[in-house]
Amino acid sequence: MENYDYLNPVRLLYGKGQIANLGKLILPYGKKVLLVYGQKHLKETGVYSRITNTLKSSGITIVDLEGVHSNPRLHLVKKGIQICRDENIDFILAVGGGSSSDSAKAIGIGTKVNYDIWQAYEDFHSLMHMNEGQFPHVPTQSLPIGVVMTKAATGSEFDYTAVLSNRDTKEKLMVINKVLYPKFAIQDPTLTFTLPKEQIAFGIADIMTHYMEQYFVVQENTLILDRTKEAGLKTVIEAGKAVMANPQDYVAQSYLLYCAAWACSDQSMTGALGAWASHQIEHEISAITDLNHGHGMAIVYLGWMKYVHESLLHKFARFAEKVWSIKRGGKSDSQMAAEGIEKTTEFWKSLGITLNLSDAGVDESVIPEAAKQAVRFGPLGFIKQLTEDDVVKILESVK
Amino acid sequence: MENYDYLNPVRLLYGKGQIANLGKLILPYGKKVLLVYGQKHLKETGVYSRITNTLKSSGITIVDLEGVHSNPRLHLVKKGIQICRDENIDFILAVGGGSSSDSAKAIGIGTKVNYDIWQAYEDFHSLMHMNEGQFPHVPTQSLPIGVVMTKAATGSEFDYTAVLSNRDTKEKLMVINKVLYPKFAIQDPTLTFTLPKEQIAFGIADIMTHYMEQYFVVQENTLILDRTKEAGLKTVIEAGKAVMANPQDYVAQSYLLYCAAWACSDQSMTGALGAWASHQIEHEISAITDLNHGHGMAIVYLGWMKYVHESLLHKFARFAEKVWSIKRGGKSDSQMAAEGIEKTTEFWKSLGITLNLSDAGVDESVIPEAAKQAVRFGPLGFIKQLTEDDVVKILESVK
Repeated sequence: MENYDYLNPVRLLYGKGQIANLGKLILPYGKKVLLVYGQKHLKETGVYSRITNTLKSSGITIVDLEGVHSNPRLHLVKKGIQICRDENIDFILAVGGGSSSDSAKAIGIGTKVNYDIWQAYEDFHSLMHMNEGQFPHVPTQSLPIGVVMTKAATGSEFDYTAVLSNRDTKEKLMVINKVLYPKFAIQDPTLTFTLPKEQIAFGIADIMTHYMEQYFVVQENTLILDRTKEAGLKTVIEAGKAVMANPQDYVAQSYLLYCAAWACSDQSMTGALGAWASHQIEHEISAITDLNHGHGMAIVYLGWMKYVHESLLHKFARFAEKVWSIKRGGKSDSQMAAEGIEKTTEFWKSLGITLNLSDAGVDESVIPEAAKQAVRFGPLGFIKQLTEDDVVKILESVK
Repeated sequence: MENYDYLNPVRLLYGKGQIANLGKLILPYGKKVLLVYGQKHLKETGVYSRITNTLKSSGITIVDLEGVHSNPRLHLVKKGIQICRDENIDFILAVGGGSSSDSAKAIGIGTKVNYDIWQAYEDFHSLMHMNEGQFPHVPTQSLPIGVVMTKAATGSEFDYTAVLSNRDTKEKLMVINKVLYPKFAIQDPTLTFTLPKEQIAFGIADIMTHYMEQYFVVQENTLILDRTKEAGLKTVIEAGKAVMANPQDYVAQSYLLYCAAWACSDQSMTGALGAWASHQIEHEISAITDLNHGHGMAIVYLGWMKYVHESLLHKFARFAEKVWSIKRGGKSDSQMAAEGIEKTTEFWKSLGITLNLSDAGVDESVIPEAAKQAVRFGPLGFIKQLTEDDVVKILESVK
């Protein structure tokens, strides 16, 4: 394991009925709340009124910011920042999936800086890829935020990352900074019951690729980390099947929520940091096309696994054995690895996820631009250094 | 899974050389530090001078409190509280194992209350066991503390529990309160290299029983929790063997430290809280006899497993299969459970741990008193409600 510096101060409240605690959780920060959410689905399912009633009964004033979109957008974040300033908002409450949470994070830091918040995303992206240069737009504080999750997927409720899309420049960038941590996150499985099955499936792929980005690492001596992720992956696969069969399966939904939080948490990142090359490639695809992230991840990750697995055969073989329970027998690592990738493909297919770009509505003409953007600061990845040409080949393999 | 409210704000720094960061970690809280530690071992191994040199080079003034004993003592804690008040201490740094950490926690809260700190332990103990009554001695703040671990065992560096022994009344009680969380914990495997093998072995048993107290629970639908603990237990067993063969095995020591922290953390406690009956019984034994806690746990836990396992056969059978890799074949749960307990016994024996009270220097004459004390607020345990008579039988079985 590599040296690490772990910190996760998020208070995570799990279980049915936890939203009754919202008032108690928020009031220490103030009485005026910006409520950030998508729109239709939340109101149709009654979650919106349950939350607003709870807040009102605690004497909290609500200002609405609806319209969060998959691949959260800079435009809405700027609107939220303006509201926070004009209305002297005390606390931001996100309700929904990772897009609501990431939007709230961006608004939280954006309210506290005196520059265009997009500069923080541009600087962080440059900082990640370059050793030299000045990157002055580093947020040092945030308005306090909280998250009520209605989808098991990104784990944004329990991490310190925020992704943001700029539809004008067709860029999708992120900030990773410990000031982004929510003060609390609520995970109530009953709030996930009404999510459309397509969204559930994309969420399952998202959780799995978070574990896998941190599992397929080049570092050695990671046994306890590997086993923890194998426990998570096996459980997500089993719970994923159960939830697709019955979205009201409380126990299976609870496992998905649990794994979503820990898969992308600082616990998962410690000891051996993966390169997250597939995420970087997928971000370029969805920046251009607005493809759903979980959907994009399933497609890109399969292409990536096929392209790089020979450079980390023993780990892909272990994955097949431990996660998919494929019997070793006399098989070579190569054969085991291929079977593990095949099982993953079959599983995602069984969830109804289309596994190539064209079936996902993405024209292959975006490949050159996405590949060029993905490597604009240099090659991607640790297992194999991926050049623009490599990224093109990966995307061509799943076009 | 049961509803939970998870929170763990401890910053955990892992790896070789992390003590170089001590100045940076402590200075935000002030420049005057109470250093809490055992004595001889720390000075002989050079750890003491490495730490004090680092602190001094950061301009930190050190006040020593040496003399921490296995089963940390109220007497020393009171001395520490007096020093903190007289010397206006800003920060408490514990160096050692769980006893140093627990002492620092007790001094931290004790400095901030205007009553005898033992009253907080008495009240918490009453509160745990009784539904009615007034328990006014609840600490609400603490001097900030940090921990440098030199032993993988209790996980006190990453939890909010503190155990304390009163040698006058022969009681050993605990406080569980989130104000006890350290600000940071440092786990550097190289600091554990010189620990006597007997201490290493007791630490291994301690870590295992923390996982097991939270694994053998009556709650259903705990699959992700079970798998996470199985991952930890398997790793502790393998790493334990490696460390006993070579205490300078950096990787194996790192696994023990990792598991020690998470096994007793709030992550481990969430979703299905165990009754910790064995811990309560062991605490009574060591309260009277001053037996090492890890040693006592191995002995009591074996007695407890044998006594209660028939009431939770499926889980003990799973333990045998998943942790000890015992083949199911056509075996009954009962047979599997027995084999799992046998494997655990053999393993602890292989570490050199004596597995009965008399070989551990504990005379059987203490059994009646320990049993009576253990159940003074009522029967213990969820799997089986243990009366005084049951506790006597458990202890008689390992006398």
